[in-house]
Amino acid sequence: MPPTITAFENSPDRGRGQARDMRVRWALEEVGQPYDVRLVSFAAMKQPAHLALNPFGQIPTYEDGDLALFETGAIVLHIAERHGGLLPTDANARSRAIAWMFAALNTMEPPIVELGMAMLFERDKSWYAERLPMLQDRVRTRLGELSRRLGGADWLDGAFSAGDLMMVTVLRRLNTSGLLDEYPDVAAYVARGEARPAFRRAFDAQLAVFQAASRS
Amino acid sequence: MPPTITAFENSPDRGRGQARDMRVRWALEEVGQPYDVRLVSFAAMKQPAHLALNPFGQIPTYEDGDLALFETGAIVLHIAERHGGLLPTDANARSRAIAWMFAALNTMEPPIVELGMAMLFERDKSWYAERLPMLQDRVRTRLGELSRRLGGADWLDGAFSAGDLMMVTVLRRLNTSGLLDEYPDVAAYVARGEARPAFRRAFDAQLAVFQAASRS
Repeated sequence: MPPTITAFENSPDRGRGQARDMRVRWALEEVGQPYDVRLVSFAAMKQPAHLALNPFGQIPTYEDGDLALFETGAIVLHIAERHGGLLPTDANARSRAIAWMFAALNTMEPPIVELGMAMLFERDKSWYAERLPMLQDRVRTRLGELSRRLGGADWLDGAFSAGDLMMVTVLRRLNTSGLLDEYPDVAAYVARGEARPAFRRAFDAQLAVFQAASRS
Repeated sequence: MPPTITAFENSPDRGRGQARDMRVRWALEEVGQPYDVRLVSFAAMKQPAHLALNPFGQIPTYEDGDLALFETGAIVLHIAERHGGLLPTDANARSRAIAWMFAALNTMEPPIVELGMAMLFERDKSWYAERLPMLQDRVRTRLGELSRRLGGADWLDGAFSAGDLMMVTVLRRLNTSGLLDEYPDVAAYVARGEARPAFRRAFDAQLAVFQAASRS
């Protein structure tokens, strides 16, 4: 039995691959593992059956036999530990790749999500014009630091790893902000991730869900 | 040679154990490993020597032989993988403990940091009174979900793990918000973590750094 992940029945991103199931789909495609998908509605995500899988009522979740996991970082790491292709075999390089996973989720993503939330929910507020540049600058600081570390390399630390997978999915959330255009090397890094065949397969799979929901 | 971590030369939290080196100190104390500390100034954190260890110019970093790591999640996981006491031996329970580490850092911490940043830097802004309740409610939502999952248990999933360590340090950042008082079981969970001898040793060690800096 392949593992089962959950995803939005009707994704608010309209199939642009911004929902967090994209990370897990991409990881499974990179390691060549099939998976099943169970679609959940926003209402169902807050019901006991789903909360038993994820106490915070979010997608994706991951079920494999008697294991149930939540948090994309943990799910991708679990997959990467059990299948080749997402973590280096050298112990130090492996620890550094995991550091990039945490950096993507705990250092890079918070200011990006905060900017995205403001752009979605505070656009009509009196303070929006004053706060927006502050939020953009926080993201710019991180993008500048990331650009400096990349230093023209293809990936963050040697070969493509789960760290790059997480970082690319986090950076893709900037798509409507215009900020990536200010850092062409970071934009090229994201494009490099998006060009991977495993990314394309994962993207097409989540897009197909949205297109089927739109037709029904 | 024990590993070397970095910490603030002069912590802005005045020794209350809110700086992120506390997580690494606590983890090392839990597994009984000695460590050295190198103190860095705010200016030094943005210099090339420190940026080589952490491209985002933050503390703590972790150096052990030819390995250099950043991100507290990655450092604590690295320690937990190499020494007993912070991760269950059962494979599924181990993956779930790691999920709680990511939940602490990627689901719980972002709204807590956002609230803390607003309380620090936006208190004088015209919008503070209107935004504050919104930020508080986002944290309340997560605290309620965490409380429901705890369900009166001592720890998040069986015995104390690296997941609890990260969650307790994240929740401690709420200390000046008053929100923990609204969730007595979560407050008791934090107090349970703080009562562990390893926490006390780590806390005292970082407090001693602040006290020495204050005297000099």
